[in-house]
Amino acid sequence: MKLFTLGPVEMYDRTFEIAKKQVPYFRTPEFSEVVLECERLLKKLAGAREDDKVVFLTCSGTGAMEATVLNCFGENDKLLVIDGGSFGHRFAQICEIHGVEHDVIKVPYGKALTREQVWEHDGKGYTGLLVNIDETSTGQLYDINMLSEFCKRNGMLFVVDAISSFLADPIDMKAHGIDALIFSSQKSLALAPGLSIVILSGRMYTERVEGKKAKTMYFDFNSHIENGKRGQTPFTPAVRLIYELQDMLRYVDEMGLEAKLAHMKKVAEDFRSRLDGTGLTLPDYPLSNAVTPLYFPDGNAYEVYETLKKEYDVFVTPNGGDLAKTVIRVGHLGNHTVEDNIMLIELFKKVLDK
Amino acid sequence: MKLFTLGPVEMYDRTFEIAKKQVPYFRTPEFSEVVLECERLLKKLAGAREDDKVVFLTCSGTGAMEATVLNCFGENDKLLVIDGGSFGHRFAQICEIHGVEHDVIKVPYGKALTREQVWEHDGKGYTGLLVNIDETSTGQLYDINMLSEFCKRNGMLFVVDAISSFLADPIDMKAHGIDALIFSSQKSLALAPGLSIVILSGRMYTERVEGKKAKTMYFDFNSHIENGKRGQTPFTPAVRLIYELQDMLRYVDEMGLEAKLAHMKKVAEDFRSRLDGTGLTLPDYPLSNAVTPLYFPDGNAYEVYETLKKEYDVFVTPNGGDLAKTVIRVGHLGNHTVEDNIMLIELFKKVLDK
Repeated sequence: MKLFTLGPVEMYDRTFEIAKKQVPYFRTPEFSEVVLECERLLKKLAGAREDDKVVFLTCSGTGAMEATVLNCFGENDKLLVIDGGSFGHRFAQICEIHGVEHDVIKVPYGKALTREQVWEHDGKGYTGLLVNIDETSTGQLYDINMLSEFCKRNGMLFVVDAISSFLADPIDMKAHGIDALIFSSQKSLALAPGLSIVILSGRMYTERVEGKKAKTMYFDFNSHIENGKRGQTPFTPAVRLIYELQDMLRYVDEMGLEAKLAHMKKVAEDFRSRLDGTGLTLPDYPLSNAVTPLYFPDGNAYEVYETLKKEYDVFVTPNGGDLAKTVIRVGHLGNHTVEDNIMLIELFKKVLDK
Repeated sequence: MKLFTLGPVEMYDRTFEIAKKQVPYFRTPEFSEVVLECERLLKKLAGAREDDKVVFLTCSGTGAMEATVLNCFGENDKLLVIDGGSFGHRFAQICEIHGVEHDVIKVPYGKALTREQVWEHDGKGYTGLLVNIDETSTGQLYDINMLSEFCKRNGMLFVVDAISSFLADPIDMKAHGIDALIFSSQKSLALAPGLSIVILSGRMYTERVEGKKAKTMYFDFNSHIENGKRGQTPFTPAVRLIYELQDMLRYVDEMGLEAKLAHMKKVAEDFRSRLDGTGLTLPDYPLSNAVTPLYFPDGNAYEVYETLKKEYDVFVTPNGGDLAKTVIRVGHLGNHTVEDNIMLIELFKKVLDK
């Protein structure tokens, strides 16, 4: 089996070495040390500032998105949401559910988000911006520098869901002025699903979280941050995933963030460079190193997904709805090399030749 | 290492065989089959009715408790909460946070919940009762037949958090008229933490959930139940845990529920029968098969916990707060036999003799 999916992704053998062991009891100083080491390494890899806060949540990425809105925004806010696919749209739905005023910037399918679209909202009293920096449903990587500049000039809080982009594309909380960074275990960290992380800026914490009562017990950032001081969580965490996270963060840290990102870039660009002769094409908008969306002019995308799955035990990521026939996404996250690209391109040629 | 803790607990080798494998892509008919089999076996083991609904949540037990209150109750309710320890108290706090009117029945530490305490609230317009049927912080097993009778005569919805009691004590959704049953992966199922399950009665679903909009996206039971029809979840689930769950449910089902409960009862009673000569004593209230709370008359409970941990790599469950010095809890959940009891009792004698 080989996964070119977007979570779970192809895992590393070192993770299985941890997963196959008894999960320890966790209300101990030893486990606290593991959590605190994860916190330190996550802050380093995310370019976080010293007073930034790390929250470990046992939930999917959507849970972490909702937790962030619930804890950080309320009835006095007016937010801007980049809605260029199903994940951006989800941020808008979350604001809707919790009665947080918001406007959306719709990015039409196949088009890049432009500076003009964003600047139209300049000076209009928005208090925060919510974006899935790699809109995983389309693979579009939005311009983080442009969005960062816009937030800074408007004094807005900048919330970046980097679920598929963290450790795949360059993201730096300090340099980009990010106030909440969200990601999950099953993407570039290549662990099993079930753990999500939110890193809050010192500003977000002091202005929006500290001393406030959020309308949630499970997702209450204050109790997480309070327990986090001693390396614990208010409720039983995904203990096994936290041990796997410690190991993966050590691995990435030893490799170095630059080397990790360079590898991701190499694999993604290598894959895209091999498409000649397949008949498959790329979109025009900027792409994340996490995923390559491929256009199938003959409308046989879903059939190709199924053939790869059934005949070769190789999984690419199908699309739903209108795009099911014309687009599949090839994930590059996790344990991937150029050799995997060569294999997959060969399979595409074989299957499309049939 | 040997765990007599209350989650994570001592796991089975068969679980490690699954945990050490690549986590598969899950938006497939094959994974749907796994989820649907889990649903079928869970309903069977819980004594659920055919139209009961199973919700798989990626969260801790507290998340599932909060999700149940959020989806099933609101401003027209008046709930009764059994508060006999930190978990019962948590239900009251959740009602507080979400503005659900409620009264608590306080069970003083060391005392059994009485029929009189409950019947005082008879005929007073309560719409539901929330209970942690084994209050895990004290090990008290409340009388489910008595609470069930009270709910039936008052037409109340009966919410049973059976987090440590499911597959340890007899619980039958139909016989006990349970409207929501809550439990998690890291207790008697002996899996890693990170997956919680809520089973709703047909009545709870049609009266309280169907067609209603809960103020939550992540915990919205309607979207879970809708996706559940095809064996899927609205958001990325704890895929690895669901494979482990399938395996564990098959194991328990092959053994038979009666045999599983008889084994749990045997291990718990055997442990309690061996305390003579240790100087340790049991509380007077009824106990769950999940856990034995032990009273240390010399006030050295926490020291014993630490000695067992440091010198023998054996973990019992310490208490916090006022009870830290006088009480520890010995968990029997997971892969335990009478031999483990003999070993632990020997260690107690050795350590207490020092």
